[in-house]
Amino acid sequence: MPYTLLIRHCGQLLTLAGPPATRPLAGPDQANWRIIADGYVACENDRIVAVGPMAELDEGQLTPATRIVEAHGRVVMPGLVECHTHLVFGGQRAAEFERKLRGESYLDILAGGGGILSTVRATRAASEAELLADALRHLADFRRYGVTTLEAKSGYGLDAETELRLVRVAREAGRQQPVRVVPTFLGAHVPGPEYAGRPADYLAMLVADVLPRLDPAEVPFVDIFCEQGAFSVAESRQYLAAARDLGFGLKIHAEQMHELGGCEMAAQLGAISLDHADYLSTAAAARIAAATQGRTVAVLLPLVPLFLRLEQYAPGRAFIDAGLPVALSTDFNPGSCPSKNLWLALSMGCLKMGLTPAEAVAAVTRNAAWAIGQQQECGSLAPGLRADVLVLNVATLPEIPYWLGDNPVRQVFIGGELVAENP
Amino acid sequence: MPYTLLIRHCGQLLTLAGPPATRPLAGPDQANWRIIADGYVACENDRIVAVGPMAELDEGQLTPATRIVEAHGRVVMPGLVECHTHLVFGGQRAAEFERKLRGESYLDILAGGGGILSTVRATRAASEAELLADALRHLADFRRYGVTTLEAKSGYGLDAETELRLVRVAREAGRQQPVRVVPTFLGAHVPGPEYAGRPADYLAMLVADVLPRLDPAEVPFVDIFCEQGAFSVAESRQYLAAARDLGFGLKIHAEQMHELGGCEMAAQLGAISLDHADYLSTAAAARIAAATQGRTVAVLLPLVPLFLRLEQYAPGRAFIDAGLPVALSTDFNPGSCPSKNLWLALSMGCLKMGLTPAEAVAAVTRNAAWAIGQQQECGSLAPGLRADVLVLNVATLPEIPYWLGDNPVRQVFIGGELVAENP
Ligand SMILES: [Zn+2]
Ligand SMILES: [Zn+2]
Repeated sequence: MPYTLLIRHCGQLLTLAGPPATRPLAGPDQANWRIIADGYVACENDRIVAVGPMAELDEGQLTPATRIVEAHGRVVMPGLVECHTHLVFGGQRAAEFERKLRGESYLDILAGGGGILSTVRATRAASEAELLADALRHLADFRRYGVTTLEAKSGYGLDAETELRLVRVAREAGRQQPVRVVPTFLGAHVPGPEYAGRPADYLAMLVADVLPRLDPAEVPFVDIFCEQGAFSVAESRQYLAAARDLGFGLKIHAEQMHELGGCEMAAQLGAISLDHADYLSTAAAARIAAATQGRTVAVLLPLVPLFLRLEQYAPGRAFIDAGLPVALSTDFNPGSCPSKNLWLALSMGCLKMGLTPAEAVAAVTRNAAWAIGQQQECGSLAPGLRADVLVLNVATLPEIPYWLGDNPVRQVFIGGELVAENP
Repeated sequence: MPYTLLIRHCGQLLTLAGPPATRPLAGPDQANWRIIADGYVACENDRIVAVGPMAELDEGQLTPATRIVEAHGRVVMPGLVECHTHLVFGGQRAAEFERKLRGESYLDILAGGGGILSTVRATRAASEAELLADALRHLADFRRYGVTTLEAKSGYGLDAETELRLVRVAREAGRQQPVRVVPTFLGAHVPGPEYAGRPADYLAMLVADVLPRLDPAEVPFVDIFCEQGAFSVAESRQYLAAARDLGFGLKIHAEQMHELGGCEMAAQLGAISLDHADYLSTAAAARIAAATQGRTVAVLLPLVPLFLRLEQYAPGRAFIDAGLPVALSTDFNPGSCPSKNLWLALSMGCLKMGLTPAEAVAAVTRNAAWAIGQQQECGSLAPGLRADVLVLNVATLPEIPYWLGDNPVRQVFIGGELVAENP
C-alpha cells in the first residue's frame, strides 16, 4: 500500500527507537536512542510504516495522493505523551493562589474554605456538560503544545457518583477530539469530606462500591495519594492490592512531601509508575530499579515544587544513574500546578533535576508511554506505531529545552492527521 | 471623530491608569491602579480615546465603520512592554547549554571557545540581512505573546562597526513590523576581544569613536554591564557620565552576581533603570528609592537565575515595600536566558520574588514603559496613549500568573490594528 503521509527532510529525526523492547529506557539507554540526520517518516493512514534516512526513502511508495510535508531541516519527533494530569475538575483556584502570594498560610486558606475541597465543591456542583466543555478546552491547549496522548485522573469528586462521572467525562473527552485520553481512577485522592478522619472507611467504600463498576479495559489504572493528610502506606498497600486483584494496573502519588515509603511499597505490588518522588532517596530508587528490573517508571513533576514555592525537586539525575526509568509530566491540576506547558516541565527537568536534553525528551515520549502502558501505540517513531508526529520550529535536540518557556511545535499529527498548526 | 475600534464587554479592564502621573508606580501604588468591571476601550485610529464602564459608553461614537471586538467577559489590558532584551545576535548556544547540563564548568566552556565570545564571533560573521531576519523572527514570537513595545540592546559586536550595525538592525526591525522597538547601546557589554585586559581602553574607544555616531533621539539609552569580568564601578561611572554628557539616558546591568554598588552609582547619575539587581540589598534599594524619589525603575529578570541554575533572585517584594518601582523582563539573550515568554517571567516574579498579580502586571506594562521612557506612549489604557491592547483568554487578573507557562493572549492590537490572534 502506498504512503498516505510523508514527512521528509527532517534535519534531526528523533526516533526514540532502539533497544530495549521489553521495558522503559533506563540508565544510559535513556539517552541512547536513535537520531537520524536528514530523515523521513512515512505513514499509511493512522500508522507509521517506515522511518529512515532520506537516502533510503522508497520513492515508489509515493502517489499523487500522498500528503508530503517538508520539514526543511527541522526536528521531527513523536507526539508528546502527557502521563499524569488531573484533567477534569470544576472551577479554578487563582484567587487562592493570590492569597498565598500575599502570605496567607495553607491552614488559613483551608479554614477559609480553600484547598482541594473547594475544587471538590466546584466539581460536584458542575454539570457533566460543563466539566466536559472545560476538559475539551484544556485538551485543545495540550494539543497545541503537541500532546497526542494524555492520562486523565479522576479525584475531585470524592464520592462514588461524582468519581464515576469524572471518569465518564474523561472518556467522552477522548472520544470528542483527537488526543488519545487514558483514564485513571484516583478516587483515593484524599478522603471524601463525608469521611473526614476515616480514610480506611472511605477506601473500603471505594473498593466495595466504585471499583467493581469500572472496567479495567476502559480505565486501566487505579491511583492513590500516599501522604500525610491523605492515605498511609498501610492503607495504600491494602487498597492497591485490592485494585490489583480486580485487574487494574497500579499507580501511586508518593514521596511528594515526605519519605514515607509509598514508592517502594507500590513498586513491590507491581505499580507501573511512581509519581512525584521528590523525597525519594537515591538508595530507595536503586532498590526499586533492581527489584522491578527497570520496569517501573518514576514520573517526575518539576512544575509542582516550582508552583508551590518549595525547593525540593526529585533527584532525576541520580534516579537515571541508579537505573530507574524517568518520565516527566506537568501534573496539570488546579491546586498545585495549573500548567499545560509540558515543554516547560521538560526544561525544568533539565534545569532542576539535571537531565540532559536527550533524557528529557525520552521522559516525555517513550518513557511516558510506558508509564501509562501505551508503549505499543506511541512514544517513539517506529513501524506499527500510531502516526503521532510533531514537526518543531527548532533544528537541533538541545534547542528543545534551551528556548525556555516557548512552545516549539509547528505541526501536530495524530494518527496521520494534521490536528494543530502554530505559526 | 467616531470610534474606529471598540473593545467592549471586558470582564476586567486592567487600565493600569491612576496616579501618580509623574513617576513609575512605587510602593502601594504598584498594585493600586484602576480595574474596571464590564468595561470598554475605544480608539480612533492609533490612539485610545475613551476607557470606562460599559454603562458610560457613548453609543453615538459608533458608526458602521467601527470595528467592534467582543471581549465576552475576558480580561483586557495594555500591550506588554518588554523593557530589557538583547534582540540582535548571531547563532544560538543550545549546544553549550547541553554541555553545562552534562556538568562542564564555565571555565571549561570558555576554554573551548564558548560563552559570550562565541556569540560575538557568530554575530560578527553574520550578514546584516541574516541578523535582521533572526530579529524579525524573534519579534514575531514576542508579538504572539502580546509584546507591543520592546527594548533591544546591542552588545554582541564589541567593535565599533559591528555595534553600530546591531543598532541599525534593531531600528530596521522596528520599521519592518508593528512592534515598537526602542534601541539601547550596550557596546559596553564586556571588553571586546581586541581589548582583553584593557577595559578602560575599550570604553575610551566607545566614547571617542562610537557614541558620537549615535543620535540620542534615535538611540535613547546607553547601558553598561558592571560586574566582575566586565566593567568596574569606577569604569562604569566614568563611561555613563560621558554618555550622559552626550545627551543619552542611562541604564546599567548591575548587582547580577555580586553587590559591587553599581546600581547605587547609576542611580546617582540619574539612570532610568537598574537591571538584574539580584544581589542588591534592601537597604541599598531603600536608599535608591529615596535619593531618586522613586523615579528610577529596578528591572528584575527572574528567568536568568532560573536558566543559569542559580538560586539568587532579586527580593522584589522587599524592593516594592522599600518604595523602589519594579519592572519585570525576560532579558532575552542567547547565553543566560533564551526565553521570549514574558508571561513566564511574570509568573516567576510572583513565585520567586513575591510580587502579587497586580504588582506583576504593572511590572510588565506601566513600570516597564517608564523603564524605557515610553510612558507617554504605552503601558496603560488611557486617552491619548497608543492603542496597544490585549484581549486575554482568562477572566480574572490572578489567572494571569496562575496558568503557569501558558500564553494567555487571544488578540493583540498595536496602534489600533489587529497584529496577532491565537486560538
Ligand atoms: Zn497528581
Ligand atoms: Zn541583559
